Amino acid sequence: MDIDALIEQRYSANHFDATRHVDDVTLTELLRLATLAPSAFNAQNRRFVVASSVKAKERLLRHANGQDKVVHAAATVVVVGRLAPHATLAAALQPSVDAGVIDADLQATLVHYADAMYRDQPQNQRDEAIRSASLSAMTLMLAAQGAGLVSCPMIGFDAAGVHREFGLGNDEIPVMLVAIGHAAAGNWPQKPRLPLADVLAWQ
Amino acid sequence: MDIDALIEQRYSANHFDATRHVDDVTLTELLRLATLAPSAFNAQNRRFVVASSVKAKERLLRHANGQDKVVHAAATVVVVGRLAPHATLAAALQPSVDAGVIDADLQATLVHYADAMYRDQPQNQRDEAIRSASLSAMTLMLAAQGAGLVSCPMIGFDAAGVHREFGLGNDEIPVMLVAIGHAAAGNWPQKPRLPLADVLAWQ
Repeated sequence: MDIDALIEQRYSANHFDATRHVDDVTLTELLRLATLAPSAFNAQNRRFVVASSVKAKERLLRHANGQDKVVHAAATVVVVGRLAPHATLAAALQPSVDAGVIDADLQATLVHYADAMYRDQPQNQRDEAIRSASLSAMTLMLAAQGAGLVSCPMIGFDAAGVHREFGLGNDEIPVMLVAIGHAAAGNWPQKPRLPLADVLAWQ
Repeated sequence: MDIDALIEQRYSANHFDATRHVDDVTLTELLRLATLAPSAFNAQNRRFVVASSVKAKERLLRHANGQDKVVHAAATVVVVGRLAPHATLAAALQPSVDAGVIDADLQATLVHYADAMYRDQPQNQRDEAIRSASLSAMTLMLAAQGAGLVSCPMIGFDAAGVHREFGLGNDEIPVMLVAIGHAAAGNWPQKPRLPLADVLAWQ
């Protein structure tokens, strides 16, 4: 199915078929695709905590405002944004150096620029964590749609509770939950959008 | 081409073919697809300022740290996040009510919840603006890839300058620039990522 059709057909599922599993190989491949989303400087300042066991999903549900799709979905992914991308940029770029895509001089230059942009600038760090995590989350949802699954992004959760429950680091924030699984009956279709003219300005 | 291949092949283009145009019908369709990305409450708290004229792209370049891909690309889209989503949620949901997807009672309930989440909570508003704009931006980039184009997300710009230059509202922030066009020679491939084991935790 082409990308246009996937984007058209994706909807935020409220009802998942709790009897249908998604195997770890499939989930891993979807998450691998999610890592291919871009991030500023290729800092890759996001990671993924996958609640796929019944126990983990129940732990997550405690902090998810009673949204039981967290447990009915085959897995619910905590998309985690990482603050302080400048501090880990050299490591994040090392695979690019090793592959000969960039050289060590450019790696150092990029770390220098990232340092100027994020060090001691908590709002910039938070903005970037949310941007990178969201770009990955969207890629994950479209990849899931392409695999015949449905998804639901959620922001209605207790961030401090999720942080504590899953042992996130001091430099990490949970940006979004993404439930993934097989659809059950009774879901809403994709909801209509405002007219394009309301949200589009040509210059 | 399937979604997996599009995600694999997408890269952040540094070099655009400045001689190749992308017509407005194509750009409009890509942006329509971008509006189908999800947003919390379906608030649609993002919009798109499309710099496609030479003049507009040059105005944008002044605030884009000399990144001339802004003008070499066929168009560079300012993806704008909107603060105060609770204030415009009723209007954003009206097409869903009109289409019979939700009823007016649910519309009012959702506005009530959004009000509790965002009113007088500027950090929540900013987080949501960045999330929604980023989800749309990723959808836009994958749609462009599906249309045989390339793209580049940019966060290296003067936000205050772009805000002023394009007359954004008090409740708006420029979240990202997305350049779209035809590739020129000399682009990097997609840069390697950290090993999956470094960014994936199973629970």
